[in-house]
Amino acid sequence: MQTTIMTCWGAQPSAMLQRLKAIKLMVFDVDGTLTDGGVYLDNKDGEYKKFTTKDGLGIAQLQRSGVRCAIITGRQSEIVTRRMQELKVDLVLQGISDKSRALQELKAKLGVQTAQVCAMGDDLNDLPMFAEAGFTACPCDAHPYMHSVCDLVLTLPGGRGAARQLTDLIMLAQGHLTADGGPL
Amino acid sequence: MQTTIMTCWGAQPSAMLQRLKAIKLMVFDVDGTLTDGGVYLDNKDGEYKKFTTKDGLGIAQLQRSGVRCAIITGRQSEIVTRRMQELKVDLVLQGISDKSRALQELKAKLGVQTAQVCAMGDDLNDLPMFAEAGFTACPCDAHPYMHSVCDLVLTLPGGRGAARQLTDLIMLAQGHLTADGGPL
Amino acid sequence: MQTTIMTCWGAQPSAMLQRLKAIKLMVFDVDGTLTDGGVYLDNKDGEYKKFTTKDGLGIAQLQRSGVRCAIITGRQSEIVTRRMQELKVDLVLQGISDKSRALQELKAKLGVQTAQVCAMGDDLNDLPMFAEAGFTACPCDAHPYMHSVCDLVLTLPGGRGAARQLTDLIMLAQGHLTADGGPL
Amino acid sequence: MQTTIMTCWGAQPSAMLQRLKAIKLMVFDVDGTLTDGGVYLDNKDGEYKKFTTKDGLGIAQLQRSGVRCAIITGRQSEIVTRRMQELKVDLVLQGISDKSRALQELKAKLGVQTAQVCAMGDDLNDLPMFAEAGFTACPCDAHPYMHSVCDLVLTLPGGRGAARQLTDLIMLAQGHLTADGGPL
Repeated sequence: MQTTIMTCWGAQPSAMLQRLKAIKLMVFDVDGTLTDGGVYLDNKDGEYKKFTTKDGLGIAQLQRSGVRCAIITGRQSEIVTRRMQELKVDLVLQGISDKSRALQELKAKLGVQTAQVCAMGDDLNDLPMFAEAGFTACPCDAHPYMHSVCDLVLTLPGGRGAARQLTDLIMLAQGHLTADGGPL
Repeated sequence: MQTTIMTCWGAQPSAMLQRLKAIKLMVFDVDGTLTDGGVYLDNKDGEYKKFTTKDGLGIAQLQRSGVRCAIITGRQSEIVTRRMQELKVDLVLQGISDKSRALQELKAKLGVQTAQVCAMGDDLNDLPMFAEAGFTACPCDAHPYMHSVCDLVLTLPGGRGAARQLTDLIMLAQGHLTADGGPL
Repeated sequence: MQTTIMTCWGAQPSAMLQRLKAIKLMVFDVDGTLTDGGVYLDNKDGEYKKFTTKDGLGIAQLQRSGVRCAIITGRQSEIVTRRMQELKVDLVLQGISDKSRALQELKAKLGVQTAQVCAMGDDLNDLPMFAEAGFTACPCDAHPYMHSVCDLVLTLPGGRGAARQLTDLIMLAQGHLTADGGPL
Repeated sequence: MQTTIMTCWGAQPSAMLQRLKAIKLMVFDVDGTLTDGGVYLDNKDGEYKKFTTKDGLGIAQLQRSGVRCAIITGRQSEIVTRRMQELKVDLVLQGISDKSRALQELKAKLGVQTAQVCAMGDDLNDLPMFAEAGFTACPCDAHPYMHSVCDLVLTLPGGRGAARQLTDLIMLAQGHLTADGGPL
């Protein structure tokens, strides 16, 4: 049996939705996952990142539905702090060299099991984090190796809707969206 | 009978043009509709949006032809204020939590009926606004649910010409452009 | 008979190259032609434009080969002034409301005939300028009406190589590049 | 015999991998190669470039594996200095008018032969540098002439992963990545 979801990414196997139904913690990498991967620099000391409003609405909806959202990133940036404040995400772990241990500790703190964790990342440095998650996903423009190890490759690129596709799928699996992605 | 319009979006049914002929108020969402949806942030307190000149010319033309243009957006930003000043759009409603009521009040103030209102948006938070409009449209990169509820899905993405396609169609329907989008 | 040019835009009719051989003045619109059409604004008083290095090299080469390059734009911006200084383009006409008269005067000043002028633009406000040029071109993402009135539609979008394709074609027609776009 | 590499760019001839096995010095152009070629300017004195995190990770990995990385660029920019510091690339040659001589001197200084040098660039001004390298590559959006003279055209554009594809291929050829681009 298959379940029809939004037209942009077609029908999804029900087994996947079954696994997404269990998710209580959604962990995102930042660069290339919630952003377009761009490192925008100026000729002074400015640094810039590009997020997207659609991902923002998806994260806000997912949190309101009861799933905790977290950020685990190797870099440290005021930009990420600001964006996560806007989205009311308070589990923001930056400057993390050991993403695996960071996620282990977060799971212990929140009391969630591996099967209840979904992780999304776009490059090899997210693999340690993936080892601690029950379900893994990447944007369509992730490094090709990620395509081969993820449970799900979204059809949109990082920072341009991939995260929203994933949050919508979780919301759908948990009964908080209609089959075509609309509000109940 | 069909009417041939600009090559980039092919022939359009005359029934749609008939409805667009009645439009007296054009209401736009901002992020993802008049912009590319990008949330550009820097490491200080800067915020950036990307509009496009082609949409700007379309809005300017539409206003000169007699159709009022308005903005209804949930966020509040100086950027939107500046851009709308450049385009001489004076109906700018920002920081709106209830987009439905905002549009109801605007219609009452201007004395226009639902059938005379066209609304354009790209995500679920525009649905309340859509309920108050006689004709609805979204960019090609709108959330998939919007594709299923809109009267028209443009072929260009938000902030890169989708709004211009819509303003051209209204201008055409009202006899202010030639069938191929040129000046009369 | 056809002449093979660069692989990215295929074979071009020799009649077109014959007309491009006569060009002594190349006139560009700015927004959407030498830029991506983006109106990037921040929450202070900053404004940004995106040009591309490939167009820059093309304009520099074309000027060194003896063809004069000029800018005629309706807007006025320090950004354009800076970029044109970098490219050593000194015919920079900004804040022009009557682009037709501006080009007429430029032709008279330089002593060039209509058949010696090539103009490139992306939207309806460039039509008056086109009326004064012997050869006209637009980027692939120009307004559809421009596609129908131009002598040549490039295969790349504005601000991402369209101008370079045109300057290469002129250089080729005038014997300053090999058939595959390389140096002599 | 062919060797399967990452799915995103398919199978590569083993002869090419054999040549990449010898590389000890990787030289990059900047604009259009490590960036998207965009010349972002503001209305003051700001200048901006867009790099990508995936290329950054690739360059970091390649250096750790023992291959030296260098930058040779015609322009001079604080932005490049900052980005290369982040990536711990210390061979940064900016403001170079004679790229051929710059690379000759670099080879002599490091004691590497032509066959041990890989160069990547996107436009005609990189040709002199290419003459000093044993293997040459360009992004998919390089000037068409570069496509005809390079040993390898990557499938991704400049500043959006092309450099990573090349560093991955060198790493693979030298036995530091698995055939699908993953860690050993």
